[in-house]
Amino acid sequence: MRIAFLGPHGTFCEQALLSVVDDFPGAEPEPATSTTAALDALRGGGADLACVPIESSVEGAVPATMDGLVESPPVVVVREILLPVRFAVLVRPGTTVADVRTVASHPHGEAQTRRWLSTHLPDAEVRMTPSTAAAAAAVADGQVDAAVCAPVAARHYGLEVLADGVHDTGDAVTRFVVVARAGCRLPAPTGADRTSIAATTVNEPGALLAILTEFAIRGVDLTRIESRPSKARLGTYWFFLDGAGHVAEAAMGEALAALHRRCTDLRFLGSYPRATVPAGSTAPSPPVAAPVAGQETADYEEAVAWLRALRAAPDPGVG
Amino acid sequence: MRIAFLGPHGTFCEQALLSVVDDFPGAEPEPATSTTAALDALRGGGADLACVPIESSVEGAVPATMDGLVESPPVVVVREILLPVRFAVLVRPGTTVADVRTVASHPHGEAQTRRWLSTHLPDAEVRMTPSTAAAAAAVADGQVDAAVCAPVAARHYGLEVLADGVHDTGDAVTRFVVVARAGCRLPAPTGADRTSIAATTVNEPGALLAILTEFAIRGVDLTRIESRPSKARLGTYWFFLDGAGHVAEAAMGEALAALHRRCTDLRFLGSYPRATVPAGSTAPSPPVAAPVAGQETADYEEAVAWLRALRAAPDPGVG
Amino acid sequence: MRIAFLGPHGTFCEQALLSVVDDFPGAEPEPATSTTAALDALRGGGADLACVPIESSVEGAVPATMDGLVESPPVVVVREILLPVRFAVLVRPGTTVADVRTVASHPHGEAQTRRWLSTHLPDAEVRMTPSTAAAAAAVADGQVDAAVCAPVAARHYGLEVLADGVHDTGDAVTRFVVVARAGCRLPAPTGADRTSIAATTVNEPGALLAILTEFAIRGVDLTRIESRPSKARLGTYWFFLDGAGHVAEAAMGEALAALHRRCTDLRFLGSYPRATVPAGSTAPSPPVAAPVAGQETADYEEAVAWLRALRAAPDPGVG
Amino acid sequence: MRIAFLGPHGTFCEQALLSVVDDFPGAEPEPATSTTAALDALRGGGADLACVPIESSVEGAVPATMDGLVESPPVVVVREILLPVRFAVLVRPGTTVADVRTVASHPHGEAQTRRWLSTHLPDAEVRMTPSTAAAAAAVADGQVDAAVCAPVAARHYGLEVLADGVHDTGDAVTRFVVVARAGCRLPAPTGADRTSIAATTVNEPGALLAILTEFAIRGVDLTRIESRPSKARLGTYWFFLDGAGHVAEAAMGEALAALHRRCTDLRFLGSYPRATVPAGSTAPSPPVAAPVAGQETADYEEAVAWLRALRAAPDPGVG
Repeated sequence: MRIAFLGPHGTFCEQALLSVVDDFPGAEPEPATSTTAALDALRGGGADLACVPIESSVEGAVPATMDGLVESPPVVVVREILLPVRFAVLVRPGTTVADVRTVASHPHGEAQTRRWLSTHLPDAEVRMTPSTAAAAAAVADGQVDAAVCAPVAARHYGLEVLADGVHDTGDAVTRFVVVARAGCRLPAPTGADRTSIAATTVNEPGALLAILTEFAIRGVDLTRIESRPSKARLGTYWFFLDGAGHVAEAAMGEALAALHRRCTDLRFLGSYPRATVPAGSTAPSPPVAAPVAGQETADYEEAVAWLRALRAAPDPGVG
Repeated sequence: MRIAFLGPHGTFCEQALLSVVDDFPGAEPEPATSTTAALDALRGGGADLACVPIESSVEGAVPATMDGLVESPPVVVVREILLPVRFAVLVRPGTTVADVRTVASHPHGEAQTRRWLSTHLPDAEVRMTPSTAAAAAAVADGQVDAAVCAPVAARHYGLEVLADGVHDTGDAVTRFVVVARAGCRLPAPTGADRTSIAATTVNEPGALLAILTEFAIRGVDLTRIESRPSKARLGTYWFFLDGAGHVAEAAMGEALAALHRRCTDLRFLGSYPRATVPAGSTAPSPPVAAPVAGQETADYEEAVAWLRALRAAPDPGVG
Repeated sequence: MRIAFLGPHGTFCEQALLSVVDDFPGAEPEPATSTTAALDALRGGGADLACVPIESSVEGAVPATMDGLVESPPVVVVREILLPVRFAVLVRPGTTVADVRTVASHPHGEAQTRRWLSTHLPDAEVRMTPSTAAAAAAVADGQVDAAVCAPVAARHYGLEVLADGVHDTGDAVTRFVVVARAGCRLPAPTGADRTSIAATTVNEPGALLAILTEFAIRGVDLTRIESRPSKARLGTYWFFLDGAGHVAEAAMGEALAALHRRCTDLRFLGSYPRATVPAGSTAPSPPVAAPVAGQETADYEEAVAWLRALRAAPDPGVG
Repeated sequence: MRIAFLGPHGTFCEQALLSVVDDFPGAEPEPATSTTAALDALRGGGADLACVPIESSVEGAVPATMDGLVESPPVVVVREILLPVRFAVLVRPGTTVADVRTVASHPHGEAQTRRWLSTHLPDAEVRMTPSTAAAAAAVADGQVDAAVCAPVAARHYGLEVLADGVHDTGDAVTRFVVVARAGCRLPAPTGADRTSIAATTVNEPGALLAILTEFAIRGVDLTRIESRPSKARLGTYWFFLDGAGHVAEAAMGEALAALHRRCTDLRFLGSYPRATVPAGSTAPSPPVAAPVAGQETADYEEAVAWLRALRAAPDPGVG
């Protein structure tokens, strides 16, 4: 089983994927040149799964992933991974701080480690690369002396860690998703799941309000809402919504069926276990709302049983 | 099969019941002394059905009926009847207008025919009776000369019609219901039905709003809302709601199940065909809202089929 | 200043009025023959105020009062009174329990003291009168031996109390209102007020929901909702709403202005201090919701100041 | 008066700014190196206005602009511009199609003209540049033969138009905004305005629903909703909302005051005339909802007058 990930080797995406790869027995990670390429490989059959970044607590949504999720044929998220952002400075073996005259990184990496760099490498020239992994490759090639990148890049490029944890703020987190072709078996409910959808509505006042109400009235906590242009016209959008719960559960299922009736287009993008930030990180996990009284699965089952009894009343010869 | 109705013979309630009695083969109407007595007879087994007034376009809800519907054991409405209010002046055979010195009626009857009385019987003394049927009985007994009452009273008391249609406004309507013990077969859906419930909620802001939202979000038009004291405490209520639709239909069923989860007490009071005002009356029937796009039964079925397909996806070996 | 009340002398309504009459200096209570007569006297100028029952925790809304409040010219409630229902048995001076062969009361009085009567006067014949005060009058006239009525009737009819507190359940409460002609000075806000309105809406789905939302979104707790037929057509209603707060306060004022825009007819029926059940009664006062964070008067003032600053920005020569 | 725009010369941003620059008398456009630099110049006093892209119908929101708008000190939008995306192929004077061996553009430009390029310049090598204007500069420098860029770049770089309107789809539109420091005079209401805000809320279920309800209940049509990470924690967001109307109008003003009470942070980002797509373009303007009955300014004024009369009732000596 091949898993395409946003490459090249040494990216945070690879690091995220490696943290869960044991749960996909027989999986072989393969770098793709872009998020779009990873999803295309999945759709085209060149990969069985794709692992791509979807959201960063600092940079926000990843547009290419959002847009890619609603293309055809349909795909679904089967896993999410929260990766605290942790930058390291990698060098060729034997290089010391005093040896570093040039340092490379992706602009995001440079931006998040600026304070460390100005303190510890005040005189080094900073060069930009298309990805943090490309910075590591440039060190391996001897083009620069140091790279600010994911620690995982060290092993791929034969580098060693000059300094670790060099990011200025410790609480940034990136969220990655593992995506499969629709029609696969969905992850079983765990009791702490998340469901993702994308929806378009008629362009009339209150349409989004009605969608949010369909979730709220059933006690489903929405954990994320994003809009992306529908490309048809300025002012028309895809709404991407994440909610707490699993499609196999009554409240979420009923809410999704309600949206199916209400939306002009509705894409089910998966139900999967909610990830938490790994132990050892100070970054906070996304907030989770408490269950709403009367809206839990047992309440739904009890209500359905009551309704079934009403409907199936025997015939006493009247009415 | 015995049908208890609000007696005595000659009431508007009897007139309403007679208009539908052919739909209950073998039914024998039996007068009860009060609405409460009629419902008690039903609950106690002394009657198989009860016919009682529930609402008047002039007087409003009938409290004894509302309160009686939520007592135990449970009962359900299986039929509603809309009776345009039509008063007649009944006299002993041979009596002329010039002979009438005294006229009797229930205060409601007197109130709704005051203009006719002051024009045609300006000198007659008006006497009050406990019911309009009692006024007819008083004429038969010779205690008064004329009664303002339901035309149906003529045949019971051997009277004749001195004048018909003597009510001042032609558009008053009374709504009656035929009630059965819960557990009976419900009337089959007709596509134009009404469902009645009574509910109590926790006493917190927005509780009623949430109940109304459960109906609105599913496109169910509420045709009536009444509150009655719960008797536990001033400021706590039973809410009586009528909505368009049948419990066997998806939208209404889902709304009722939602209320079952949300309410502290919920009573299903029946699903039955919506009545219209009989042809020949100028009184308007209650308004009916148009169905809401996307909330009809076919939309529910389609959404459920979509949901079922999502949940039952086969296992491709991932996730 | 004349205050018409629901008479005759000795009614619970008179008892309620007397409990607050000192707050209306120079007021002279005058009995009216009915609720309608009391309100007619007020409207016609024959009285300056009217005191009438509006709601009972046992019997529910008083239809004649509700209907009377929305007639023309407009009137407003300036005071509410909560009177725990307390029945006494009154007799002519010197009468003992053993002397009582007949006892009179209004049906409501009889219903609420049935257990006491069957225990203490098992052999007395019970007779019905049009009001509990009429029962006291009948005792004074020597027609019956005892009356079950309001304790206040004793002084009017020269009777003495044979037994007090004879009601079977101790928690029944009746709510009375003192009504003035619209245009009077409204009672000043106390911080614990109630505002009453009546509204009609277009007959379309969601109209009542929108009205409730106008209150909820502004944190106004609705303490009561009643519907009364509009008399135009079955299925069309006046909605009577009571909410916590005073028209002079920002949240309530804004909500009322919103209803003015939304309703086909809107009647302001007064802002007045919320009454509580008098000390010494075990009956619970109506529930009161806690204020909603962010919706108190200070929050409104702060928001308005912020908005005013936005709108009044000086001109720097751009835009 | 200096207006910083997203440079260098020849960008679509400059082209957008030039289309409205006559409305800012004495304005001198000055290129900035980035959106952030343009807003920094405005905040620092190096510019009096800034013109930056905020949204594209193809690419979606411009994150740097969104994030920049909520920084301190506050700024407000005073103008919006809708620019249909129109690409031209620019060359050095005298160059013919047959001469073109290399063509440069920004990846967005290349993506939106791919079909034209494969048809008309199938053999040309395509090179990427950091902006479309940089592609034009590369042509002027002789590094490449042709640039796919905004037509406005021709005059800055002394190039001529080899082909115009070469974009594959004709309906893409980019929205730009002219931004001023908060405290400036706001553009006067025109009757067809847009208001922009950004808000954060407590992280609890229904918080966004409540915000949307504050607009909907007052008939304000929301034309756009975007979320951006708050940077504090994954799952916490700034919501950017655009609504039809002007802060000086009653409905919008009341809605904003309501949000001020409800939100943990609220930024007013301006009220300004709604732009339309210029005549001659086939691209659709963003949709506009019809005004909601009962929620127009005259309705607000009437409601406020009614409320003021209620509150100011004279004192008749009661209450």
